[in-house]
Amino acid sequence: VGIDLFNPLKKELYAVGELINRYLEIEAPEITELNNHTVQKKGKRLRPAISILFGQMSGYDVEKAIMMGTCFELLHTSTLIHDDVIDNAETRRGQQTHNNIWNNCRTVLYGDFVFSSAMRLAVDIGSLLVLDKISTVTRELVSGELLQLSNAFKFPPTREKYYQIIKMKTAVMFGGCCELPVMLSDNCHLSENARKIGEEIGYTFQIIDDCLDYTATDKKLGKPKLIDLKEGKATLPVLLAFENNDSDVIRITKDIFENKDISHEQGEEIVTLLEDGSYIEESFNIARSHVKNALHYLEEFPDCQAKTIFKKICQFIVERDF
Amino acid sequence: VGIDLFNPLKKELYAVGELINRYLEIEAPEITELNNHTVQKKGKRLRPAISILFGQMSGYDVEKAIMMGTCFELLHTSTLIHDDVIDNAETRRGQQTHNNIWNNCRTVLYGDFVFSSAMRLAVDIGSLLVLDKISTVTRELVSGELLQLSNAFKFPPTREKYYQIIKMKTAVMFGGCCELPVMLSDNCHLSENARKIGEEIGYTFQIIDDCLDYTATDKKLGKPKLIDLKEGKATLPVLLAFENNDSDVIRITKDIFENKDISHEQGEEIVTLLEDGSYIEESFNIARSHVKNALHYLEEFPDCQAKTIFKKICQFIVERDF
Repeated sequence: VGIDLFNPLKKELYAVGELINRYLEIEAPEITELNNHTVQKKGKRLRPAISILFGQMSGYDVEKAIMMGTCFELLHTSTLIHDDVIDNAETRRGQQTHNNIWNNCRTVLYGDFVFSSAMRLAVDIGSLLVLDKISTVTRELVSGELLQLSNAFKFPPTREKYYQIIKMKTAVMFGGCCELPVMLSDNCHLSENARKIGEEIGYTFQIIDDCLDYTATDKKLGKPKLIDLKEGKATLPVLLAFENNDSDVIRITKDIFENKDISHEQGEEIVTLLEDGSYIEESFNIARSHVKNALHYLEEFPDCQAKTIFKKICQFIVERDF
Repeated sequence: VGIDLFNPLKKELYAVGELINRYLEIEAPEITELNNHTVQKKGKRLRPAISILFGQMSGYDVEKAIMMGTCFELLHTSTLIHDDVIDNAETRRGQQTHNNIWNNCRTVLYGDFVFSSAMRLAVDIGSLLVLDKISTVTRELVSGELLQLSNAFKFPPTREKYYQIIKMKTAVMFGGCCELPVMLSDNCHLSENARKIGEEIGYTFQIIDDCLDYTATDKKLGKPKLIDLKEGKATLPVLLAFENNDSDVIRITKDIFENKDISHEQGEEIVTLLEDGSYIEESFNIARSHVKNALHYLEEFPDCQAKTIFKKICQFIVERDF
């Protein structure tokens, strides 16, 4: 399982890249230099891939599904750009962040530029119903990011708040990626199912992402490890330890939140505690249960090549180590 | 001439306030506290007032015109929120900025929240044509802000770049405020005229705003004076001095741009130079010439109370000292 699984979508994902170029394009070299960096450090393009697959599964127009997926990718990119400013991140995906090359001020405005380019693209899809969904998803996404930041370092953290935040900041957008192409297809009766599939996959994606902060090596992730606790974010493994009244994890987390910093020793200790208490394993199990829910809802969709690829993507999301 | 001139629009502007509340509303106290501050430190609401007046002049549905104006007001507000982060501003309109009360990180995300709330409202206007215009205006606005920042401290500054930037960051949105209600009215043949009126008023507004940075007293403006040069922005009075080869102004501007700071003495000297060289007076004349253009295009509109009020607003824009 790896990036190879996107190979069957090579042509469509190339079109995504072309669309991104077209919608970011502007006759101003002062902005083009930032665009070039954005395009160069592209991610997995998981969101557009998912929209394309659900377009194919439901018999929807491929070009429109590509536009929808590209819109979500641009929205996602704009939040990453602002996230990196907020986290003062120096690298992402193994490359320098915008704020590291330019500065925070220009990067904040450039994030707004990418955001407004996404809305420009959203309008060109030409459907008020689509715009209604995209603008709602966008507001949820942004609100989720804001809630996450507002709740940083709050003690004790709760699973309820964690789920509220990951739903808003991640699951809702994955839901939109799946729902939108289906909603406008001849199989629109499956759109509610599609949304649920996307949300479940979104939970999975975020929970795995959060687990990788404890287990991944720096190089593969392209960003430093153990950054969540340092930023005051208690993710699922830590929350499971809290629910289990694990006094060591509670004590260290409290220390980290109070000092707003994490020592090398604290880092090693918490990873050991989370592994020994099986909290990371249990989190992976919970992530897998969300995939299982997704696959249940997926049964309603007709068997086809796109469905097979999507199943492999689900597998990739839980098994990835980067 | 003063704020009194908005009195005939009291009912409509109250509805604008209600709409702002409704679209910012969210079930999350972590965000509501920032919303409360936004609503409390409201501005003149010039943009909604203009949309409402052009709705009235063209016989368009008042409720829809209110929605359009409110959307522009929210977009404008979101850029002010990010601007204040970028400028590290402590006060605006005589009150604390969001970034001064909370912090830069939360304020950046909160600006995104207001932005996404504006898009949510834009969709509810229910017209793809309107969304096409609003998303284009938004992208221009953001690009203008980004261009302005990218060109800060560039020497020598030019009037061409200045006009490009104020068109994008200010004039285009004023154009949209006037154009949109007319575009969907029975008098849609006047929409191109309306857009031109808005753009001319936008130039006026920005040029006056830039002059006030040299002439206004701190208290009335609610923000410190002489901030533009310090931020590397050479506005019209300085540009006129450059075009006149005024060696003193050129020398001081160069010094300020090189040091990225302005001393009290430099501030006093440049104000004196700009006044003695009649560059500020000439800038006011240019601002007035843009109003004249606007009033010329306005002739096509039928005489009515709204037109009379709009003329007074034009007068207010050039005569305001805050």
